[in-house]
Amino acid sequence: MKIAVIGAGAVGGYYGALLVKSGYDVHFLFHSDFEHVRQHGLIVDSVNGDIAVSTVNAYARPQDMPPCDIGIIALKTTSNEALREILPHALQPDATIVVLQNGLGVEKQVQEILPDATIIGGLCFLCANKIGPGHVKHLDYGAIRMGQFLKDGTAAGITDSMKEVYEVFTRASVPIDLAGDLGRARWEKLVWNIPFNGLSVILNADTSDLIHSEAAQALLREVMLEVIAGARCFGHDIVDDFADIMISATKQMVAYKPSMKLDYEGKRPMEIDAIYRRPVQATADAGYTMEKTRIIMMQLDYLNHKR
Amino acid sequence: MKIAVIGAGAVGGYYGALLVKSGYDVHFLFHSDFEHVRQHGLIVDSVNGDIAVSTVNAYARPQDMPPCDIGIIALKTTSNEALREILPHALQPDATIVVLQNGLGVEKQVQEILPDATIIGGLCFLCANKIGPGHVKHLDYGAIRMGQFLKDGTAAGITDSMKEVYEVFTRASVPIDLAGDLGRARWEKLVWNIPFNGLSVILNADTSDLIHSEAAQALLREVMLEVIAGARCFGHDIVDDFADIMISATKQMVAYKPSMKLDYEGKRPMEIDAIYRRPVQATADAGYTMEKTRIIMMQLDYLNHKR
Repeated sequence: MKIAVIGAGAVGGYYGALLVKSGYDVHFLFHSDFEHVRQHGLIVDSVNGDIAVSTVNAYARPQDMPPCDIGIIALKTTSNEALREILPHALQPDATIVVLQNGLGVEKQVQEILPDATIIGGLCFLCANKIGPGHVKHLDYGAIRMGQFLKDGTAAGITDSMKEVYEVFTRASVPIDLAGDLGRARWEKLVWNIPFNGLSVILNADTSDLIHSEAAQALLREVMLEVIAGARCFGHDIVDDFADIMISATKQMVAYKPSMKLDYEGKRPMEIDAIYRRPVQATADAGYTMEKTRIIMMQLDYLNHKR
Repeated sequence: MKIAVIGAGAVGGYYGALLVKSGYDVHFLFHSDFEHVRQHGLIVDSVNGDIAVSTVNAYARPQDMPPCDIGIIALKTTSNEALREILPHALQPDATIVVLQNGLGVEKQVQEILPDATIIGGLCFLCANKIGPGHVKHLDYGAIRMGQFLKDGTAAGITDSMKEVYEVFTRASVPIDLAGDLGRARWEKLVWNIPFNGLSVILNADTSDLIHSEAAQALLREVMLEVIAGARCFGHDIVDDFADIMISATKQMVAYKPSMKLDYEGKRPMEIDAIYRRPVQATADAGYTMEKTRIIMMQLDYLNHKR
């Protein structure tokens, strides 16, 4: 069984290294880090013990990859245009693909490229940053919540494909939760992602700055409640208390810069479409206006375009 | 006739210098700039011709001032607590007081201190910055729109006191508009102040950055339309086209940092209460939620408290 890791930044590098360490045959598609990793390998400084992969099956071009049975997509959604070129080379047509990306609509993009593949959406609860070429720093957490994508958008329940992927990651010591309803799981993640990603960029703050400010915490909670109301448009009955649970959980996290904040600081494009525009559009189509989320989105659009 | 200028930053310095130049007997209450102005005078670098007032009637303490007939309040609203101490010294009990301040609720504060005074609210359309002690740079514009405050909050029409103040400022070459309805005039000013002041701080931008960005212009317009809807709660029927007029007018202005942006950069408190909290509270009391304005307010609260 061959596993392809497409995009080896913090997410791909971290999980890919764990899979290699557990004996899997993992093939990494790199972009700018290819030469460095081929020479120096892949390094993860982890709170759970450091990992060094000295010999990496590294590729710069998808044509050079063997067609793999399992794919892990860990690109930023802002690079998803590249998947149309990459996936038919890197994966078997009937591969099982785990999409470790933020926001809404990402599984659909992948399914359109490989119609016969099994698509599983994965939500990473991972505090990790890429701190250099082929070099990941893992700060906290690491679990993945997974659910299978169905073309008609309905809840898949717990499928055999999910169980297979569960076994693979569990052998690599990655804590996995299986969610019977991927749509609901994605919306629950948005309850955190929408307030924290955007406000950390706009207010130049990390999670600790925000969560320990009375004014920012009130704002975070209001945005969370709006996202919860948005989720209800699609039948995901998330209780309002979920906002307080997220706030409490964040208080217990180490101070952390959300991925969008890191992208902004690194002058990379921000994942505004996946995390903001698609949820805003989907709820608008369902007759609900996410006013607060829209304001944050428009502020991010300004900052994104200004560069 | 004696005129007191309370607070001589950009606004007080600019208008005060024009009044001195026109021969009026003007008495300035300074705070930190007192010593500098007493020694070096007051300087205005103006697009209309520079003004240097070498001998200024400058005071550091209100007790030293002669009780004046006309008062011009040009403090930031964040210093309004000081008025309780200042006004009974600096002004006759039946003085006419022109409150050149931003936001809502400022005339009421002044009226409570001097119940027999005539209070006129003035909205400055002035691009001027204080660039050093006793040193103002005037970039553009300079008109004041005035309306009389009545204790019951109703429209005063054009009163004799307004006409007297009109004569004074007109002799000093300050373009004056008289507004029969101060409440409406204040809300019209908020249509500009609420989006531009807050977003310039939050997005680290000047008026030109914002107005020439498609994303920011869309956001500015939405916030303006919300403020216009807020004004309607109080019977001020401002047409939606007013938003486009404000946007066009701002496009023709020189690139400018709104006063709140300058306060934030100067590490001074921001006028969040007058420009945001009072309008938000007043409309909430009238049953309307200014959602977008609230988001901006909460973001500003965070930035204000972070320091």
